[in-house]
Amino acid sequence: MEVKSKVTPLIWQENLLLVLDQRILPYEKKYLELKSYKEVIFAIKEMVVRGAPLIGITAAYGMVLAANEVGTLHATSLREKLQSIGEEIKQSRPTAINLNWAVDLILNDINSLQNTSEIIEAVKKRAVWIHEDDANRCEKIGQHGLAIIPKSGRVLTICNTGALATGGIGTAFGVILTAHEKYKDIKVFAAETRPRQQGARLTTFEFIENGIECTLISDTACGHIMNTGEVDVVITGADRIAANGDTANKIGTYQLSVLARENKIPFYIAAPLSTFDISIKSGSNIPIEERSAEEVMKINGKSICALGTKVRNPAFDVTSAKYITGIITEVGILKGDYRNEISKVFNRVLIA
Amino acid sequence: MEVKSKVTPLIWQENLLLVLDQRILPYEKKYLELKSYKEVIFAIKEMVVRGAPLIGITAAYGMVLAANEVGTLHATSLREKLQSIGEEIKQSRPTAINLNWAVDLILNDINSLQNTSEIIEAVKKRAVWIHEDDANRCEKIGQHGLAIIPKSGRVLTICNTGALATGGIGTAFGVILTAHEKYKDIKVFAAETRPRQQGARLTTFEFIENGIECTLISDTACGHIMNTGEVDVVITGADRIAANGDTANKIGTYQLSVLARENKIPFYIAAPLSTFDISIKSGSNIPIEERSAEEVMKINGKSICALGTKVRNPAFDVTSAKYITGIITEVGILKGDYRNEISKVFNRVLIA
Repeated sequence: MEVKSKVTPLIWQENLLLVLDQRILPYEKKYLELKSYKEVIFAIKEMVVRGAPLIGITAAYGMVLAANEVGTLHATSLREKLQSIGEEIKQSRPTAINLNWAVDLILNDINSLQNTSEIIEAVKKRAVWIHEDDANRCEKIGQHGLAIIPKSGRVLTICNTGALATGGIGTAFGVILTAHEKYKDIKVFAAETRPRQQGARLTTFEFIENGIECTLISDTACGHIMNTGEVDVVITGADRIAANGDTANKIGTYQLSVLARENKIPFYIAAPLSTFDISIKSGSNIPIEERSAEEVMKINGKSICALGTKVRNPAFDVTSAKYITGIITEVGILKGDYRNEISKVFNRVLIA
Repeated sequence: MEVKSKVTPLIWQENLLLVLDQRILPYEKKYLELKSYKEVIFAIKEMVVRGAPLIGITAAYGMVLAANEVGTLHATSLREKLQSIGEEIKQSRPTAINLNWAVDLILNDINSLQNTSEIIEAVKKRAVWIHEDDANRCEKIGQHGLAIIPKSGRVLTICNTGALATGGIGTAFGVILTAHEKYKDIKVFAAETRPRQQGARLTTFEFIENGIECTLISDTACGHIMNTGEVDVVITGADRIAANGDTANKIGTYQLSVLARENKIPFYIAAPLSTFDISIKSGSNIPIEERSAEEVMKINGKSICALGTKVRNPAFDVTSAKYITGIITEVGILKGDYRNEISKVFNRVLIA
């Protein structure tokens, strides 16, 4: 059974990257043309594209555009230039580790290449591989995740983790889509996900496009519907997972995990191995991006609060491993002693 | 020390009730003129006025307008008519018990009166009393609540519980305002409170008007800021409190209580005794209003989700007494065995 999504967030056309502008979904479906790595950085920063795996893929194509832009240099200079552009791209957003992972894979590939065209070719090849590879990982995550979705299951999720966040069918979303293909009667609650409302704007769009029944709820209602017995399982994605299983994800994830445990509902993370950062011991070492006050204070350009109000806008939070029932990856579901489980996987699996 | 708010939600001018239109705050300060009880019902239903105690006060003035409207009848007919209008007003919103409390007080007062003008006078007198009485209760709640706010305290609250929700300085808001008058260095986090954003639209407005530093956060960020040690105490209001201390309040309150307990942060309810419904044994018997899908799907008239999305929109949730550190009332702070504490208070205090 091959599961497909009806949504395409990114199209690579040799020296042109078309990205679906996620800032204006679901009102408008419009692709932006990115022709330079600077435009790629803009698209990542401004969240034209978002979602940890998709950020990594977009960054990889950004490296291809960069290689084309500076391609006439001598091999050594080109490598040095790509090194520094790679660092620049990595700075575009701090929390999702897939960004670093993708850029580092490419830089590692070209590290010893002595020929300009060989370098450019290697960057392209790796970018396309990263894209296809993520689609494969999503598919496997979906298959492994099937085990945790009951028949007629009612699933709660936050933010967007579908095609719009990855190179394939998605992570948490991909699990739900796969279960829907198999059982046909999955029901989903999408939490709005303020401040940027990815749950309302993107996830309802993707569920509807894929023919899945989807109920939008305010972020304030998540605890209530768990408490009234309306949710069988909670699944979310991840932006970075530390060596002990602590997981940074969209702000609001931590509170879902606490509420799930309190209500005896299983809470799963779904993420490819590219999301793991085993160089980081625990969640407290993950940098948390603080975004602009405007995202919280304004909706559709209109202020929602009194003049003079201050704002805190952390874009992510950290869910302690103790609240996580399991982490669904492309190599299976990790459970129990996460430090041990993760270290076993990373000794066994070569990511690159 | 008398604590005053700079915000006035309601002005009674004999046969005219002026209500500050809370639907358009903080953008516009505009009073609507209510001249009939039907207009009062509209104002309650459409949330021109909201907040459990203020709904009770508005309903009481609605009864005065009704008495004026039908006043030429014989005393028996007038009483019967007011009885049926009272029932109609009580139906305007189901969860806040103060609405029933206010209407029933008035109906009880006129129960044995045999003269038309006497009845009209009694209704007026009781309505003004309910208004002033709530202001006094708020003041006492503020004084009792002082004990639970540490100096330089950082307080998290949800929805609006200030002058805009009561006849005085507010309940949870009043406690914060009182602590601010005493200590001058209280800091507040206001949760946005989707879907209707009372925290963003009303509470930031009231804090700024009263010169208190206020930081707006998305509802998704509440758990995170508790988990990072930025909150000393959580206080919320209540719409109805059962005989065992279980408390219905704005949707999102339940999850704050669970997160507070998980993070060892005290969680308090502040409410006048008119909010208690000792005829109800526990929270599971409190009716929870489900409001229109539009409130969740649209912001400022613009849709935030894909066409075809379903919506759940419970306006309230129930916080089990086990999560509540204490209930701050006008007669002191109730703690511990709530069933026993509440029954003691209601044997001792005559509400009417």
